[in-house]
Amino acid sequence: MRYLEDFVVGETVELGSHQFTSESIIAFARDWDPQPMHTDPERAAASMYGGLIASGWHTASVYMRLLVDNLIAGTESLGSPGLDALRWLKPVRPGDSLRARITFLEVTPSRSKPDRGILRSRGDMINQHDETVMTLEAVNFFARRPQ
Amino acid sequence: MRYLEDFVVGETVELGSHQFTSESIIAFARDWDPQPMHTDPERAAASMYGGLIASGWHTASVYMRLLVDNLIAGTESLGSPGLDALRWLKPVRPGDSLRARITFLEVTPSRSKPDRGILRSRGDMINQHDETVMTLEAVNFFARRPQ
Repeated sequence: MRYLEDFVVGETVELGSHQFTSESIIAFARDWDPQPMHTDPERAAASMYGGLIASGWHTASVYMRLLVDNLIAGTESLGSPGLDALRWLKPVRPGDSLRARITFLEVTPSRSKPDRGILRSRGDMINQHDETVMTLEAVNFFARRPQ
Repeated sequence: MRYLEDFVVGETVELGSHQFTSESIIAFARDWDPQPMHTDPERAAASMYGGLIASGWHTASVYMRLLVDNLIAGTESLGSPGLDALRWLKPVRPGDSLRARITFLEVTPSRSKPDRGILRSRGDMINQHDETVMTLEAVNFFARRPQ
């Protein structure tokens, strides 16, 4: 079990990878972001993107799933108040395989609540050509190690 | 059809509403954010949140869907490079009905590409008690009106 004390500033953790398909891109976007560039291969091909691309929310959701499966599941996570600087830097296309990684930027014990603290982190999604396609800076609350 | 020229700085547009249920909260989180506070009613009840709460990514995805259905579908949208200051201010619980609204902050024609420009906006999700539960500041590209 990883507690707040176990996050080392500067450490980077690899969170595994996920392959996007036409089917998964269209299925996510039909539910949450039904724009033609995400749902309609023909209209996407005629767009400035030249073909189907994943919704940025899909890429972010995949990041979150990889983060939960490969890091948060082994922690005492207490949720998140938000994030900053979410950037979709390059399109994500069918067949792309993205790996996720997290770098710990800042670890701050809470002043008012001695049982918890704040982790600030940077997340990256990187494609099979080693291009960073998404970045974000998140804040998460974690429990401190019980004394 | 709404083009870049049709976004008026300071204007707020209501984007409709969406009711969250236990089932929808659990279903989203099982796919994208499988933490017990989102997927397991008993463990959620024992947590600091005192019951099931929606994944912040679920709330954000609902915002996106309402934005597409009620605004973007009537535009020439060209995608988004990202967003800032995404804040989850209060928990979203089963039975909560959230309405979304967008306020246009800045409209900037592209200097390099005369057929498009950038909209900066603030999005809010507000619950049935008039509490703002989520905010974000987004950037979106839109086509300019053809001459």
